[in-house]
Amino acid sequence: MKHYSIDEIQGWERFYRANFVNSLSGFKPVSLISTINKEGIPNLGVFCNIVHIGADPAYIGFINRPIDAAPHTLSNIRANGLYTINHIHPEFIAQAHQASAKYPEGVNEFSEVGLTEDYKADFVVPFVLESQVQYAMELTEIIPLVMNNTFLVVGKLLHAFLEPSMLSKDGFIKLDEASSMVSLGMDAYYTTKPNVRLQYAKPDRPAAQIDC
Amino acid sequence: MKHYSIDEIQGWERFYRANFVNSLSGFKPVSLISTINKEGIPNLGVFCNIVHIGADPAYIGFINRPIDAAPHTLSNIRANGLYTINHIHPEFIAQAHQASAKYPEGVNEFSEVGLTEDYKADFVVPFVLESQVQYAMELTEIIPLVMNNTFLVVGKLLHAFLEPSMLSKDGFIKLDEASSMVSLGMDAYYTTKPNVRLQYAKPDRPAAQIDC
Repeated sequence: MKHYSIDEIQGWERFYRANFVNSLSGFKPVSLISTINKEGIPNLGVFCNIVHIGADPAYIGFINRPIDAAPHTLSNIRANGLYTINHIHPEFIAQAHQASAKYPEGVNEFSEVGLTEDYKADFVVPFVLESQVQYAMELTEIIPLVMNNTFLVVGKLLHAFLEPSMLSKDGFIKLDEASSMVSLGMDAYYTTKPNVRLQYAKPDRPAAQIDC
Repeated sequence: MKHYSIDEIQGWERFYRANFVNSLSGFKPVSLISTINKEGIPNLGVFCNIVHIGADPAYIGFINRPIDAAPHTLSNIRANGLYTINHIHPEFIAQAHQASAKYPEGVNEFSEVGLTEDYKADFVVPFVLESQVQYAMELTEIIPLVMNNTFLVVGKLLHAFLEPSMLSKDGFIKLDEASSMVSLGMDAYYTTKPNVRLQYAKPDRPAAQIDC
């Protein structure tokens, strides 16, 4: 293996370094976040730094880039506190990626990229109709990360939509059956292949395999 | 699709709900975090909520569960500020998963689970020898998430180790060639299959495919 020190990495050309560092921390759960502005016009953004924070209450977070680089999702969430997160699948990866383009504020990005607004469950923000796993969130807190002007946005789960056939008998969701995608770096997308599911690990015995 | 409201989800049995909510936000970049305690004894933990925070400076973060549930990694990082993050591959997934068991403080988890300490680059914390993508971090800030007593731990990249053959000409790392794994929910592991890499998206044109 080769050793890359931070001194070497910092000396690289900007995009080479960005590709390297963005890839290094691994594959990410890429999704489309949908919001609406004060006039009710929907916005879409591609987000991949999504974290599970807790199951009860059900908290999920995501990292938002500095406000100058990615203003619309955050300002819409600040204004009304509501957003939907929608998985991405190979059938519409080109349209989803296009939502990462910087459209002017007030442009309906569903229409621009060719995805369909799906209003339901009395939720004012649209879901992405083409997505097979959709969930609705209510803002809990926007935490500024002062070291580089990014934000951790934490919300509470309100609604989830998916096919019951994807659920295992213990509540686990077989996302590979919907081909929910992961992203790598700034622009690469992957599907997944199941490898193994293992029992809760205890110090005194090896964990056996679980059948879904 | 079926609608699952938060009222229904909150009424579910605890483990069913945990499996569902943990799966809902998608596949995660699962890795082993290695630390040492004051006596120099190494600890391993399985972490999957890892986020890219910035490329320059190179900041990477991870979510640590409440201190009672997951004390060792965090207290070691608090004590000396250093840790390594190591990708997981199918060849040692059983050993890696075993590192999620709650061993008593002061037990060498490398020996317990059957993985090998790898000391290099004058870094006091060991890397995981079996891992094909390893990186060393220095603590920047531990941010308490007050809504549920978890933590966002943000660090700065110091060293990275990987085979140069995994690097594309633009700095992108082809992690699928090393079979770096993703996890889903609390106990399922997957490998990935490349789908597409797309150019930087702009409002006025569809993004073409990139060849790695």
